[in-house]
Amino acid sequence: MIRVTMYNEFYHEQTKENVKAIYPNGMHGAIKEFLDAEGSFEPMRVATLEMPEHGLTQEVLDNTDVLLWWGHVKHEEVSDEVAERVVRRVKEGMGFIGLHSAHASKPFRKLMGTSSDLLRWRESADLARVWVIDYAHPIAEGIGDYFELEAEETYGEHFCIPQPDDLVFVTWFSGGEVFRSGCTFHREQGRIFYFQPGHETFPTYYNENVRRVIANAIKWAYNPGARKIVTGHVPVKPNVLSPFRDKLEANFTK
Amino acid sequence: MIRVTMYNEFYHEQTKENVKAIYPNGMHGAIKEFLDAEGSFEPMRVATLEMPEHGLTQEVLDNTDVLLWWGHVKHEEVSDEVAERVVRRVKEGMGFIGLHSAHASKPFRKLMGTSSDLLRWRESADLARVWVIDYAHPIAEGIGDYFELEAEETYGEHFCIPQPDDLVFVTWFSGGEVFRSGCTFHREQGRIFYFQPGHETFPTYYNENVRRVIANAIKWAYNPGARKIVTGHVPVKPNVLSPFRDKLEANFTK
Amino acid sequence: MIRVTMYNEFYHEQTKENVKAIYPNGMHGAIKEFLDAEGSFEPMRVATLEMPEHGLTQEVLDNTDVLLWWGHVKHEEVSDEVAERVVRRVKEGMGFIGLHSAHASKPFRKLMGTSSDLLRWRESADLARVWVIDYAHPIAEGIGDYFELEAEETYGEHFCIPQPDDLVFVTWFSGGEVFRSGCTFHREQGRIFYFQPGHETFPTYYNENVRRVIANAIKWAYNPGARKIVTGHVPVKPNVLSPFRDKLEANFTK
Amino acid sequence: MIRVTMYNEFYHEQTKENVKAIYPNGMHGAIKEFLDAEGSFEPMRVATLEMPEHGLTQEVLDNTDVLLWWGHVKHEEVSDEVAERVVRRVKEGMGFIGLHSAHASKPFRKLMGTSSDLLRWRESADLARVWVIDYAHPIAEGIGDYFELEAEETYGEHFCIPQPDDLVFVTWFSGGEVFRSGCTFHREQGRIFYFQPGHETFPTYYNENVRRVIANAIKWAYNPGARKIVTGHVPVKPNVLSPFRDKLEANFTK
Repeated sequence: MIRVTMYNEFYHEQTKENVKAIYPNGMHGAIKEFLDAEGSFEPMRVATLEMPEHGLTQEVLDNTDVLLWWGHVKHEEVSDEVAERVVRRVKEGMGFIGLHSAHASKPFRKLMGTSSDLLRWRESADLARVWVIDYAHPIAEGIGDYFELEAEETYGEHFCIPQPDDLVFVTWFSGGEVFRSGCTFHREQGRIFYFQPGHETFPTYYNENVRRVIANAIKWAYNPGARKIVTGHVPVKPNVLSPFRDKLEANFTK
Repeated sequence: MIRVTMYNEFYHEQTKENVKAIYPNGMHGAIKEFLDAEGSFEPMRVATLEMPEHGLTQEVLDNTDVLLWWGHVKHEEVSDEVAERVVRRVKEGMGFIGLHSAHASKPFRKLMGTSSDLLRWRESADLARVWVIDYAHPIAEGIGDYFELEAEETYGEHFCIPQPDDLVFVTWFSGGEVFRSGCTFHREQGRIFYFQPGHETFPTYYNENVRRVIANAIKWAYNPGARKIVTGHVPVKPNVLSPFRDKLEANFTK
Repeated sequence: MIRVTMYNEFYHEQTKENVKAIYPNGMHGAIKEFLDAEGSFEPMRVATLEMPEHGLTQEVLDNTDVLLWWGHVKHEEVSDEVAERVVRRVKEGMGFIGLHSAHASKPFRKLMGTSSDLLRWRESADLARVWVIDYAHPIAEGIGDYFELEAEETYGEHFCIPQPDDLVFVTWFSGGEVFRSGCTFHREQGRIFYFQPGHETFPTYYNENVRRVIANAIKWAYNPGARKIVTGHVPVKPNVLSPFRDKLEANFTK
Repeated sequence: MIRVTMYNEFYHEQTKENVKAIYPNGMHGAIKEFLDAEGSFEPMRVATLEMPEHGLTQEVLDNTDVLLWWGHVKHEEVSDEVAERVVRRVKEGMGFIGLHSAHASKPFRKLMGTSSDLLRWRESADLARVWVIDYAHPIAEGIGDYFELEAEETYGEHFCIPQPDDLVFVTWFSGGEVFRSGCTFHREQGRIFYFQPGHETFPTYYNENVRRVIANAIKWAYNPGARKIVTGHVPVKPNVLSPFRDKLEANFTK
């Protein structure tokens, strides 16, 4: 059973009526609901901005296999210490799934080397078609050629990210934009997925396809095989010097 | 001066009035016109299906730095021998630029390992917005955030190509599709670019942005440094056996 | 349980005493032994060159999730029909794992668009160190920084393959070569892994690390989510024309 | 003529006799010498740690097309402000070439999202063979299958970098290591190349192949086409709403 934690800045759901109406238990509540029912995951832990250390203590992270992150207008209130702690754990092998405006979150920016001003956007209600680009990718399992979100915030290229390892989805927006909406990366042993849908004013996290992608992504990002990477000074091993040399000489002279 | 040859199946321009009206000298004529005027290229050579060996003799290919290819309904009439000859030259370092339905041409399919049934399409007059995805790429030089083609044939994902080296453009079509419309690949020493715009019933090859992309792509695909790749049996060189060993031993014991 | 089939040309093990001594039941026997015991796989099916249709009937392939391929000197005796059948199934989602000189096999060449003369080699007994390059990759799970094969045939760059999706391993050979020994690709819905170790005169397929990599690779290549890819003519869906337009106009004028 | 600036921390050459003997005018002196003579570049500007703002004022960077960076033990003495300034200019389109231990420099780490403890190393005098991996890449132009450095510091995998856009070189070290010694990346409009050779105690920057690679890399990294990337709020353009709709409807009903 994979241990999932979700960080949610949990601000709009407490301050805006239209958001509260859609997500009465927070966006994390909507996501926890389906993940807990899916069958592959431990009950999802919740971390919010207002908790001590934003709920992301070393102990919590040490017991997290995959971290989901949703943030929008409170990125700068996340402490640098916690952001660095997340980055370190990702490099050690914890999966990281950035949802929607998490592209501008501190951990994502530190992992990618990017800034927070990364793309075009429009708070509209465009029709969004999320097209599968990589049909062989586990994150697209169970998704047809595309799925539609009747209304979403528009994000548009140019999206100032490093070249993704795999481009899983590209979204078409009715107002004329395209966006690389599903991208994988890895940093040391950590697998990272960015997934664009999820503006707070739309019921995106109740969509069956969005839920399937998030569950797929968690399974994909789970890396049970992480180990200590050896860096620093390394001597030459004796076996590189001795036994093979005779073989090489024999080989060379034949 | 880069030596460019363009293969054009040159069929629609001779058989359909509406195409002839747009391209009275063939699509190759429209492309030759601007390439010859650009200043970086030798006068463009033309090769068509009906010429002996489709105009692509060994001698022509040996004197071609970059080959443009346009074909649509006559792919199977291209001889296997000529297709193989093109593929060999690409691997030796000749650039290859596949235009529009060249994705289903014999050389492209042989280079990619793909089949001819690769994508969705619609002969419509969709508005096409060609978005720059890779702002650092030389093929996008001089192109703004995007450019528009008022009407083009729609091509849509899933486009069954291998993962491109670089994704330079993605096109938005007004009817709901996205398409990886500008993709680079390399095979051995040959640089390959696929560029989607260019349906015969639209004046696409007179568009200034399309022309700029084609000229950029030729310069990018030109590989003056190609050499003979060594394959086959290789012995061990003596210097790998002797001088370094003492160094290693000295190093190992310190 | 994943359904695995291994094709082995099964020639050296029947004709050369030194090979027979190492692999009395064929290389496929050594691989079947550990895969059957691993616990994640159905009993491995075996296909050899001399069987009717080389053991790779449509029915066998339709019931294969992942196909292993070992061939060396009998590539050209594999029928084109069977090779094409394998390629088709890979594109539909069957995993393909090319072992050692499978780089020159017909299915691999057709999938990659490569020829059979792809690399440098030396039938020697070089020490080989297989280094992990991508620590986040599931195929490297359980492998340390590197593992050693006391003696292997040397393969050296330049390896004339398309750019891999992921570079999992690079091997160091004591005689001076490096080789991209573990590479992933995908073609349509099929996941492909090439893994270099496995010359017939060395007991490579008894090595615990090699076995771990092969088992990991099968799990990675297994794609239970394959579906029919839609290609061909597609009309515009009505919802792209009507409901969103009002939204866009509302949005545009605000 | 491309405008090149080289930052060199210029410490070992002033403090260690053996380094001074090899590079009496600093490593930057050895590089300036051949770049100034090459014919494609303006006289190279020099920036060193001890200069005000390390010689990298906004004015210098604004007039630099490609920046070379050599640093080793004084990375932390580079001011954050200057490092950020360099990063910003790279994203705007200035090329960046990291030489040797520049992998641990502040600008490289900020651009990549990496830390300074990235690899194995050994201050030895291993024989290094730099193998060409990407024969189609402009940075490898004029380089044979490989070139040798009789003695270099060993760097070994795992090299904790993001997946490179292109892997141009992999180096074989006689003591048993491999290293991705030539890697390209891009960040927004800036092209980045990391090149491993160049330990201060060896005359590496006099080697003809190393010089050829550096000159090639500068030409490749030079991006004359950089423009302002549009980010932030974007409205829908009227033409996306009106003219195409009739076309689409006509198309839809036919």
